[in-house]
Amino acid sequence: MSVPDRERLARVALNRLGEPGDVKMTALVAELGAVRLHDLLLHERDPHGLRTDVAARLASVDPCGELDRSARLGLRFVVPGDDEWPEPLGDLAAAGSIQDRGGVPVGLWVKGPLRLDRLVDAVAVVGSRAATQYGADVAREIGAVVARSGRVVVSGAAFGIDVAAHRGAISGGAPSGAATDGPTVAVLACGADRVYPQAHREVVDHIAATGAVVSEAAPGCSPQRVRFLARNRLIAALSRGTVVVEAARRSGALNTANWAGRLQRSLMGVPGPVTSAGSAGVHELIRAGAMTLVTGGGDVLEMVGAAGEHLVEEHREPSTARDRLTVRQRQVLDAVPVGRPAHPDSIARVAGLGLLEVRAGLARLLDSGLVELADGGWRLTAEAHG
Amino acid sequence: MSVPDRERLARVALNRLGEPGDVKMTALVAELGAVRLHDLLLHERDPHGLRTDVAARLASVDPCGELDRSARLGLRFVVPGDDEWPEPLGDLAAAGSIQDRGGVPVGLWVKGPLRLDRLVDAVAVVGSRAATQYGADVAREIGAVVARSGRVVVSGAAFGIDVAAHRGAISGGAPSGAATDGPTVAVLACGADRVYPQAHREVVDHIAATGAVVSEAAPGCSPQRVRFLARNRLIAALSRGTVVVEAARRSGALNTANWAGRLQRSLMGVPGPVTSAGSAGVHELIRAGAMTLVTGGGDVLEMVGAAGEHLVEEHREPSTARDRLTVRQRQVLDAVPVGRPAHPDSIARVAGLGLLEVRAGLARLLDSGLVELADGGWRLTAEAHG
Repeated sequence: MSVPDRERLARVALNRLGEPGDVKMTALVAELGAVRLHDLLLHERDPHGLRTDVAARLASVDPCGELDRSARLGLRFVVPGDDEWPEPLGDLAAAGSIQDRGGVPVGLWVKGPLRLDRLVDAVAVVGSRAATQYGADVAREIGAVVARSGRVVVSGAAFGIDVAAHRGAISGGAPSGAATDGPTVAVLACGADRVYPQAHREVVDHIAATGAVVSEAAPGCSPQRVRFLARNRLIAALSRGTVVVEAARRSGALNTANWAGRLQRSLMGVPGPVTSAGSAGVHELIRAGAMTLVTGGGDVLEMVGAAGEHLVEEHREPSTARDRLTVRQRQVLDAVPVGRPAHPDSIARVAGLGLLEVRAGLARLLDSGLVELADGGWRLTAEAHG
Repeated sequence: MSVPDRERLARVALNRLGEPGDVKMTALVAELGAVRLHDLLLHERDPHGLRTDVAARLASVDPCGELDRSARLGLRFVVPGDDEWPEPLGDLAAAGSIQDRGGVPVGLWVKGPLRLDRLVDAVAVVGSRAATQYGADVAREIGAVVARSGRVVVSGAAFGIDVAAHRGAISGGAPSGAATDGPTVAVLACGADRVYPQAHREVVDHIAATGAVVSEAAPGCSPQRVRFLARNRLIAALSRGTVVVEAARRSGALNTANWAGRLQRSLMGVPGPVTSAGSAGVHELIRAGAMTLVTGGGDVLEMVGAAGEHLVEEHREPSTARDRLTVRQRQVLDAVPVGRPAHPDSIARVAGLGLLEVRAGLARLLDSGLVELADGGWRLTAEAHG
């Protein structure tokens, strides 16, 4: 452990003192360092020489005890300088704030075997809690494809898109019969020892056993709006790219998208029917050019992969009868009418070919089922016109 | 009529001689002029001093008779220099060719009261013949909104998206009880005196009576593949922007889109479910940045309108209870937990506010239905968390 105990304990205390993503706190830690800030706050006195509220609260924190109790719950506190500290979080230092949340977290509480430095090429998949079946299906597919590629799927364990993405990762990462699941990371707004929403206890426990449950909020904390806002910036910052699957115009998923944009992560969106309110927020950002349209896991891997590393499979259409024609036969085909049948000489004129060539071509096209004889003339079959 | 008879008659003859969009023909007319080209071809002789096939065919054309017969069918032949000639077609001169089709048409056969120079701010709406109900609904809505704005809707009268767009324009342009329909223009691959597909006779006749049916193919011509390809370039060139509503990966609608791109017209696409093959071609082009995503007629008008002329209506969300809070009340709300209820002093600490302010705020939030009392503490209601 290369981080001095004093540093870690100061960070535990500051983490307990402040709210996740409090911009004043994260800015002061960046400026003064955790140990110095902790010291200054602990000895802060008001004009009458009395301990300030902050100093009193800080004095009441027992960071050693917190670490011990948390360890018994299976939690560790990861701070900058630790081997597993995810370096990309450093980008938060210069990314400003949204609704007073921002900055590099003082530390992260983590539960689970996955080391956070494995997140370097992770993909976040987020979206509406009020997802449609369509949205949930697509989130699950993306989660599965990303996990199968060996990348970690990051999300927030919420209802709807989030949990579908986690579930996709869990099922997709497991080749049939394999003992290990696709690792996935749930970043929570409550303490990493708790579960929110309660209905997802089973899947969150599973993630804690196979991947990691992460929170900036101290153990025991309940999920509050400010903590959701702070949490969203971590989902974006921990991932190389963020995919928004469904988001209505005011969805919290757009807060995450906003962070991904500020952090210059790749920002992707899945379109849906224009008649679906749940896709309106995504469409708006794609239209504005802030987000790249993706249609599934293949597109996502292409966007976040190193150049050429994960090329989308070429969309190979099944070769059609038309593809197997010679250039000459195709010229004949292009001159055959759709509706009222035409005589070979008129087809020859349109095609700019000789009558013999046209007759030979028509015979071949007849074999292929592309043209048919009707009323003594030739016309395209329904298949050829399809 | 400022176009000399000789010029018009030469163009009628050349139009009958060549296929729509034949690049050699359109290039020669551009280089030599129609009268001179007609003259040269008419007197062309082979090495033995005999009339060539082309000369023989040209000699057999009776352009005066063609114009008379066409006029009796209600058709006129519009050529460059005519008052109603749509100048934007000139852009085709420099737009190259696709599959040997391209160039400015020698002339256009037109049936209907609408003058082609009204197309200057027209919008093309095209897409799959095998449209889904979703696609047809969206095409109809776009057709209606565009027509209601006073712009002309251009399409190809085909099954699926095309006819839905025409129908939308026809119904949308008519304020309840008004006698006039929204004008729409059908550009056909067959002669403007014919109808393809036959099933659309009624709607095409209606368009001919209220808007215009246009074709580059001479009267009597049947719809052939080359004529569809030539027709697609006209749909794009006659419009300020082209909207593709649904298009599978190899759809002919993408040929029209390709032309719109070459002609630097605005190119728009309507997204759909990523699970729908009919939207795959559109998604591909949006993803590649070749096409702008639009979600309906409002977006389309914004794209093709002069700056500020047709701004999309701001998406005004209904104002929520949250919107009506003061900044202070909102700070309190943001500190109230989602799940397990919290006491006012813990809420005050999270919010960084005094206890009195928090109690006052909670009372107001309780009135608004945003928070609730439970187990002696406070938490968000389902509505506030929505």
